[in-house]
Amino acid sequence: MKRILIIGIGAGDPDHLTLQGVKAIAAAQVFFVLDKGAAKHDLVDLRQRMIEEHGRQPYRIVEAEDPERDRTTPAYTGAVEDWRSRRAAVYERLIAEELPDGQTGAFLVWGDPGLYDSTLAIVEEILAAGRVAFEYAVVPGITSVSALTATHRASLTRVGRPVQITTGRRLAAEGPPADDVLVMLDAHCSFGELGADWHIYWGAYLGTPDEIRVEGPVPEVADEIRRLRAEARERKGWIMDTYLLRRS
Amino acid sequence: MKRILIIGIGAGDPDHLTLQGVKAIAAAQVFFVLDKGAAKHDLVDLRQRMIEEHGRQPYRIVEAEDPERDRTTPAYTGAVEDWRSRRAAVYERLIAEELPDGQTGAFLVWGDPGLYDSTLAIVEEILAAGRVAFEYAVVPGITSVSALTATHRASLTRVGRPVQITTGRRLAAEGPPADDVLVMLDAHCSFGELGADWHIYWGAYLGTPDEIRVEGPVPEVADEIRRLRAEARERKGWIMDTYLLRRS
Repeated sequence: MKRILIIGIGAGDPDHLTLQGVKAIAAAQVFFVLDKGAAKHDLVDLRQRMIEEHGRQPYRIVEAEDPERDRTTPAYTGAVEDWRSRRAAVYERLIAEELPDGQTGAFLVWGDPGLYDSTLAIVEEILAAGRVAFEYAVVPGITSVSALTATHRASLTRVGRPVQITTGRRLAAEGPPADDVLVMLDAHCSFGELGADWHIYWGAYLGTPDEIRVEGPVPEVADEIRRLRAEARERKGWIMDTYLLRRS
Repeated sequence: MKRILIIGIGAGDPDHLTLQGVKAIAAAQVFFVLDKGAAKHDLVDLRQRMIEEHGRQPYRIVEAEDPERDRTTPAYTGAVEDWRSRRAAVYERLIAEELPDGQTGAFLVWGDPGLYDSTLAIVEEILAAGRVAFEYAVVPGITSVSALTATHRASLTRVGRPVQITTGRRLAAEGPPADDVLVMLDAHCSFGELGADWHIYWGAYLGTPDEIRVEGPVPEVADEIRRLRAEARERKGWIMDTYLLRRS
């Protein structure tokens, strides 16, 4: 039997890796590393460094091209599902051809595999197709949510109150769905129109040497966040950011 | 200057500790361990084991009695805030009397310090009172949310959709606030009345040798969860559980 480990590696700091993650990396003989193009090169670099530090020889790194997602269509969910199926085809071939029976293969996933990541769904899609058989397990990771609140020394939740985790698209379309909202995947600073009763805790490149954070009432800091975000994205070629909105 | 580290230690598995957490434990000279009574003895044990394994000698462990929370009042938020202030008084005394200037003290916090934990608010309350000065930093931890979804190999989120994190009290009072709901702090199995369109991923003692998990359509598994939960609580004297509800 082949075995797959889907390992959450944390939000960007190599020390976000858990001891369970260290052991999982040491248990793998094959690492699948998908390159998302030059812009995401930094992310691939972090994975490579973790494998070099914690992998147990002999191991192999198998690289493949990650399919491009259509970012121009307004049909977000459909575009993601189409992209997921094309990734599934790539992953299936890797598992079938590059992972011998009896060996363990690993995918190193940014953050936690349960939070806005497609690897779990891809693996289930491959298993459902029935052309290749394997066992798999998931190793939880530090989310960018926890990294954000830790660097701001802020709590995600208030006593007895809910928090909604949502996307920039939803926030832009529907407004804040609760008094505490954690927003991910927002390319358009959709917090921009909120009033002074809203406080924002924003962070980018969390856990890395490039980390930037800003907090304050939205009307006071919105322009600064937009400026910092645009400059950083221009300089590095990519950005990953997230923020917590809290109504006072 | 005194320095405090608030360290997230994960959901129950000693290997949930991150490398950052390992280094933070090694950097502390004083560990504050508050005992919540015999029922929570297992939780204190895990902290002690982590300190023994990762602490750097010489260090001191300072134990104190955690104030009891009034669990009989219906005024949940008020009771928690009153409890928090009594805890703040205990913590303030520990920091003032037991942590010498120039040394680092640590609180080891279950899960992640940003998710339904009072330590951050307590520390801010002490600083605001102004009687004792210190710096502090937060180390993110694996949440029971990530531990739950990892053991079920389920995603917390669906593509482009929000998830609400809420409490058992809220769920009981208001019903599900979204199609994907993560429920914490539920002593009363408040999922019980949901119909067959709701799937539940439930887990208790996540990451520990006592871990229990059940998943399925709510009407099919609700009785099993209630039975397992009552038996485990009786046997161990305490229970910590959480669950994800997903509408199909």
